[in-house]
Formats: sequence, C-alpha cells, structure tokens
Amino acid sequence: MPSALPLSAALLSLLTAAPKAPAPAATKDTGPSPQVAERLVGAALTEGHAYARLAELTDGIGPRLSGSEGEKAAVQWARRSFEADGVKVWLEPVKVPRWVRGAESGRVLASERFREHPLALLALGGSVATPPEGVTAEVLEVRSLEEVAALGDKVKGKVVFFNHAMSEAADYGKVAGLRTRGAAVSAKAGAVATLVRSLATASLRTPHTGAMRYEEGVPQIPAAAVSVEDAELLHRLLAAGPVKVELKLSSQTLADADSFNVVAEVPGREKPREVVLLGAHLDSWDVGTGAHDDGAGVTMVMEAARLIGKLKPAPRRTVRVVLFANEENGLRGGRAYAEAHAAELGNHVAALEMDSGGGRPLGVALRAGPGGEELVRPWLRPLEALGAGSILAGDAGGADLSPLVPARVPFVGVRVDSSRYFDVHHSAADTLDKVDAKDLARSTAAVAWVAYVLAEVPGVLPRPEAPAAPTPKSAH
Amino acid sequence: MPSALPLSAALLSLLTAAPKAPAPAATKDTGPSPQVAERLVGAALTEGHAYARLAELTDGIGPRLSGSEGEKAAVQWARRSFEADGVKVWLEPVKVPRWVRGAESGRVLASERFREHPLALLALGGSVATPPEGVTAEVLEVRSLEEVAALGDKVKGKVVFFNHAMSEAADYGKVAGLRTRGAAVSAKAGAVATLVRSLATASLRTPHTGAMRYEEGVPQIPAAAVSVEDAELLHRLLAAGPVKVELKLSSQTLADADSFNVVAEVPGREKPREVVLLGAHLDSWDVGTGAHDDGAGVTMVMEAARLIGKLKPAPRRTVRVVLFANEENGLRGGRAYAEAHAAELGNHVAALEMDSGGGRPLGVALRAGPGGEELVRPWLRPLEALGAGSILAGDAGGADLSPLVPARVPFVGVRVDSSRYFDVHHSAADTLDKVDAKDLARSTAAVAWVAYVLAEVPGVLPRPEAPAAPTPKSAH
Repeated sequence: MPSALPLSAALLSLLTAAPKAPAPAATKDTGPSPQVAERLVGAALTEGHAYARLAELTDGIGPRLSGSEGEKAAVQWARRSFEADGVKVWLEPVKVPRWVRGAESGRVLASERFREHPLALLALGGSVATPPEGVTAEVLEVRSLEEVAALGDKVKGKVVFFNHAMSEAADYGKVAGLRTRGAAVSAKAGAVATLVRSLATASLRTPHTGAMRYEEGVPQIPAAAVSVEDAELLHRLLAAGPVKVELKLSSQTLADADSFNVVAEVPGREKPREVVLLGAHLDSWDVGTGAHDDGAGVTMVMEAARLIGKLKPAPRRTVRVVLFANEENGLRGGRAYAEAHAAELGNHVAALEMDSGGGRPLGVALRAGPGGEELVRPWLRPLEALGAGSILAGDAGGADLSPLVPARVPFVGVRVDSSRYFDVHHSAADTLDKVDAKDLARSTAAVAWVAYVLAEVPGVLPRPEAPAAPTPKSAH
Repeated sequence: MPSALPLSAALLSLLTAAPKAPAPAATKDTGPSPQVAERLVGAALTEGHAYARLAELTDGIGPRLSGSEGEKAAVQWARRSFEADGVKVWLEPVKVPRWVRGAESGRVLASERFREHPLALLALGGSVATPPEGVTAEVLEVRSLEEVAALGDKVKGKVVFFNHAMSEAADYGKVAGLRTRGAAVSAKAGAVATLVRSLATASLRTPHTGAMRYEEGVPQIPAAAVSVEDAELLHRLLAAGPVKVELKLSSQTLADADSFNVVAEVPGREKPREVVLLGAHLDSWDVGTGAHDDGAGVTMVMEAARLIGKLKPAPRRTVRVVLFANEENGLRGGRAYAEAHAAELGNHVAALEMDSGGGRPLGVALRAGPGGEELVRPWLRPLEALGAGSILAGDAGGADLSPLVPARVPFVGVRVDSSRYFDVHHSAADTLDKVDAKDLARSTAAVAWVAYVLAEVPGVLPRPEAPAAPTPKSAH
C-alpha cells in the first residue's frame, strides 16, 4: 500500500481505481467490511451508550468552561470513561484562559417616552467588567462593523448595539463577527461598551453568549449579548428617539489555568502510524450544560472509539479521538494538539470534528484533494438507511481542526441537522432534553462507520491543496 | 322591545323568532347593519390602532403587577387613551394585594452522583420568602395533589416538586391546581417548600410564574416554579437517588395598595341602561411586559370601544369596557366590579372578556340560556372572512367575569387561537414581539363586531341557569 505522504501519481491512480458502487466487494484484506457496518451501526443505534454518556457529562458534570471545576471534572470523567471502555487514553497539557462571569445586569433607563426595562443579557466570554457603578450611555444601533467605522464621531461615548437579522442556522457565519469583533471595532471608534443581539434562531428572552476578542492597542470595553426580544425592544425604542442603557458586568479574566486535551486511540493493526483523528471539544460555555455544544460531539466520538476498539481485528490504521480543551474561548486545545503532534501530522490521513450538535446525520462532507470523493463514496451505503449516504457539497472542518490546515490534513465531516442548533447554542437552554436520543445514536453510528472506513479503506484521502490565505477560522 | 329582565316567555319567543340565516335583513331599526360591519372590521384590520396601543402599554409601560408603579402608570395611560379616543371613562377604586418579588435563586446541591446545578426559577406570586440562608431539603417528586396526601409522613421536611406532563394549551386547566394549591396541600403534610414545573408549552430554560394561594391555618411555605428543563433535570436525577435543593426567595407581601378598575363606555342610544360589558385585565405579572396576557385583550376591547364610539348613531345599548385590576393575583378587580355594580347586573345583557392572548379569532362561544345561539348566529357572517364565523362548543367566560355568574349575566367569548399562548404566558418572554399585529387586528375586529351586535340586536341573550355549584373559577 502506498504511504500517505507524499501524494504520488501512483497513489492517485490507485485511489481512483477504488471500488465505486453500488456495493463494494469487501473482505478484511481489501477494505471495510459490511459485517462491521452491521456491528457498528447496530450497536450505536441500539445500545444507547452515547446518550447515557451525554447524561453523565451534562447532568453529572454540567457546564465546563475552560479553567473551571466543571472542566477539570470533565477531563477526569473522559479519562475514566475511555479506560472503562478499554480504550487507551492519555492527557496532553494545555494552558487555557480562565474567564469568570460575575453578577451582571442591564437596563434601559426610563425616559419621558417609556418606563425602565430590564435587559436579559449575558456578558460575552472574555469581556472586561464595567466599573462597579456600571456604564451608562446612549445606545447607537448599527448593523455591521463597517457601519461603526462609517459613523465616525457619532460612536464616541456610545453603547454600540449590533442588531442583525439572523433567522436560521445558516446565518450564523454572516453575523458571528459582530459578536467576536464588535467590541474592538467599536472601541476604536470611541464607544464605551457594546451590546450584540444574540446569535439565535429562537428565543424566550434567552441571551446567548459566545467568544469575543479584544485587539492589541485598542481600549477594552465591556461587551454583552442581549436577548432577541431585548434587541427588538431597543430597536423599537430607538426608532422614536434616544435611548440610554446602564450595564453592569463583573466578569474577570484570571491567570491561565492548567487543562488538557484528552487523547485516546485504537491502534491500527497494519499502519498504526497513520492516524484518523476524531475530534470534539470537551469545554462548554458556563451557561447551560453544553449538551449540543459540544457534549453531543464528545459522546459521538467517544462511542465511535469504544465500538471500533471492540473490533477484532482492529482497523488497518489508528483511530485517535481528541477531546479538545478550550474550543469556545481560545482554541488553545486545537493549537496545542497541532504543535505537539506537528511531526506526525503528515501521517494524519483524515480528521473529523463533530461540533454542530446532536442532530440526525445528513451526509458526509470532505475537504480533500481531487479523488477524495471517489475514495469515500463506495463505502457510504451503510449510511443510506440513516439518511446520510450521500456526499454533500460544502467544506468539512471544525474550529479545533483549523490549526491542521497548513499540514494539509484531509478533513471529513459527518454533517448533522443543525437547523435547531442555534435555538440553544451558547445559552442556558443547551441542556440534555434538547438532544434527541435517536438522532444522537444515528449520528454516532455514522461517525463510527465513517471513522472505520477511513481507518480500513486500502487507500487514503488525497491531501487538499495548501491554503493560499491564512488558516480558515471556523465560527464556533 | 322587551326589557332584558326578567327573562319572560314573551322574550324567549321573540328571541327564537330572530332572523336566522343566511343574510340577516339589517336596518338601523331592526338590528346590526352590514355597513357597520364594514366600518368596524375595516378599521380594525387596517388602522393598526390596537397594535400601536399594545406597543405603548408594553414598551412604554412594561410590567404592571398589582400595586406596582407600572400598574399605576397603566391606569393613567388607559384613562388618557380613552379620553383621547373620545370615550367616556372613569376610575373605580379597588384595593389590591401588593406582592413584591425579591432576589431569588435555587440550586441542586452537589452529590456524589452529580455536581451542583443552578435552577432557573421564579417565585410564585404570593409566595412567602425563605429564611435568608435559604431552605435546604430533599426533593420529593409528585404528580398530583392527591399523591401528596397519600405519601403521608414521607412529605415531612421535603421540598415537594410537582411534575406534570403539560404539552399543549388545553392541558393548562388540568395542571394549574398544582401551582395554585400545591404549597397549601404540601404544607399540610409537613413539606418545607414546593417547586412546580412551569405551566408552559415551550421552554428555553424559561420559568413561568403565576398565582398561588395559602390556606387558613396551614403553614405558609415558599413556592416557586422551575423551568421545564430544570424539572426534567430533577426528574432524571431523582430517578437514581436522593436530590437536595437549596431555595432562596425574598419575596414580600406589603400592605394592600390603591388601584382602580378603568371603566369606559359608549352610552346606548335607546337602552342606555342595558350594558354589554367588554372586559380585559390591565394588570400583568412582574416579568415580561404582559403583551399576550393581557395587553392584547386590553387593546382589543379599548379599540372596540373607540370604533363603536365613532358610530352615528350609537348602538341601541351601552357598550362598557372594564379594564380590571388585579386579575393575576387576587381577582379583586372582578369582585369589586360585581359589588359596585350589583344593582345593575340584571341589566348586563352580555359580558365578554378577552384574556387568552392576541391570537387570531376562531369563533364565538356562549354561556347563555336556551335560544342564545339562535340570537347570535345570524349576525356572524361578517366574521366568516376572519375565520371566526361559527359558534364554537365550550363555555365562554373569563376570570374577571366569574363574580357575575350568580347574577346570571350571559357570557359571550370571541375565542382566539391560544395554541402558543402558554409558550410565553406568565414568563419574561411575554413581550410585544410575540404578538402578530395582523392576528391582533383580526381579533379586535371580531370583538368590535360582536360587541356591536350584542348592543344593537333587537333581542337580548337569554340568561343562563343559576349555577348549582360554587362560582366557577377560571384558571388565569
């Protein structure tokens, strides 16, 4: 069998000669076995192990923001769980930021036109505190970062309110920059604080937090997300005249904390140095219990490893699970992994991250060189009954995988239905009850099968072109 | 024309002789006029007045719990609004309870099986405070009031947690008793506090408050509603062993406050002493802005009065609007009206309360004596285009109207689509954005037309039988 690197013409021709369809001839020597499909998919669908694990993680441990006690408990839980599953596991150290939410409140101050209103808000992760007496200023509503710059002096002394029209999950990428960069852009123009309309597709007065970043040399101003309802209220009140708000945040950034990527693997029987990486992130925001984000992904990839670990013989290549630290507010885990494993990234034949919630599987996406689809397509038949037997357009990846882009690691995605993901994403409502056990089992089955295929298929995915632009940054 | 009281055989025969269908002959002497239908319905559907008023009430004033500054502001706003509409208005004093929510929190205490979880909760209206250090006790889950009694000594020292399976609006009546009576029943059995699963058909970790009542001679124990998610969490944790919670409530009941029923009317041209009462309640809970509950009803009946007030000539009978005080936590407004107007209740020929949210109209319901449907049915054609042209099975009424039952006042209801009402009812999410302006306009049109019909139709509704049982109490 050809080595995975460098990508040779011989390899390419081999790949394109791989069985195409409809039913691949499959023996243990030539590729993935249909009997294994039955075993993996059957177990994932019937044993309920992923959901039980998700209950342990969310009900047993709960929120697990980087550096928190919950995160520490989750790391130990993950290690114990892999051990219980008979899967080799170790911890790789990662220094993570330690941001702590404090008491927080906001209100629209009374005017001649209206009485006072409380604001349902959450400080954005990373936000500085306000002074104890709060920040009180007029609100300036904008729809884009560009608008802030264009408004010039009008921004000075204001609370910049980023409104937007997110209505479905697909809008997230378009508006996430308002949350991550709004404070820096506004501070540059002289604003005293920012509010961003929650990035949400449903709301019952529910604010959604998320990461924001300051910029070197720009004043650090407080930043919070308000609920969709409060954004609508501000918009209506502003339509008739000036509106003042008061914000009080007491969040703090403490010293970096010690954390870990939890790494586990099922060594390959024939090419143990070739790694199929399955990722998810173990940290969550401090509100809710991170059931969809990313408990679901964590339990899917853990269960894939458990099921693959029971196969005799083991797959040809190593299946490695990485439960990344600090995806939400720093990406330190993803970066630490890429650094620590720089020497072996050439042998990472595929990487797959599950971080779009616990919805049902829709299909498989790829980020690979030419011929990648042909390698994978013949093996997707076991996913057809799950409704996920097609290769879907669009990129594969994941925030924690983005540091692997320069090494041209092929990415594979099991795309899940995330149409309701942003109903609860980064909010207190991201709890176990929102995850459908059957959908979680279906996506777990798909992940297990795809991981096994990538570890067992005779060829490997052609590596994608090196990126021309800087490392793509997935919204997270 | 016969007098409305007493209900004579002559009247009954006249009523059953009323035009039946399909299109009533209508002149200003014989009954409601189709031209008036066009005017009332057209104006309600196109002028947007009810929605604009609802914005004033919810955005301008906000929450308006009995005795609060918001309630006082709402009373003055309502008076000014009627005056601006050229509708005669006055205030009738009502002493209302003054319950004030304080800081409140709850948590599931950590155990060997799980880490600590915060509880999203709201004290129930009327609840006493906990001691400053809180109440800490084991949770006992039950599904009914009867179960508490059956559990005997097991209830002693426990936090009784009322779980239930409300999944649609129609379930509300079945489970509301857990909220209103749960604390009293539990205290009788020795419980130290109660938690009730929010009465809700949707949740994003959203607790829903509501009224509760203590009983004479029974200890007053703290009572709060937890979000559906937290109820599910408690249920899951309890399935595996004991669970302790800590509750801290600092709510207080202050001295009764002075408030008012806001009464407005369009005097009848021919029988001004005969009253068609249109009701809604001006108070709301202290969370959210009471847009559906009952801002929508308030603005519907106000707009009905405004539109009917512009008719020349005025309808035969008086159309009186009552914006009741204190529906939510005492019903003092409804009782005060019935007392103050006891002498004229015999001349109340119909009463209609709008208190099921701002959904689209579905049809008309009646609580009247035999022949009532025949009186009303011929005049419903103008509602057909609104989808509300039928008489629906089921009772008409309203919490504020319940004190009128002994006087056998006929009740008429414009039934609205309340299938989503309990998504937001009594929660912070009951805000203007939840009300569809077109649906509100449609129901406003229906109310205006039905009110006009009742005030103009030659006959009056036969009065219902006197109730055998005690006054029915609508859940509110």
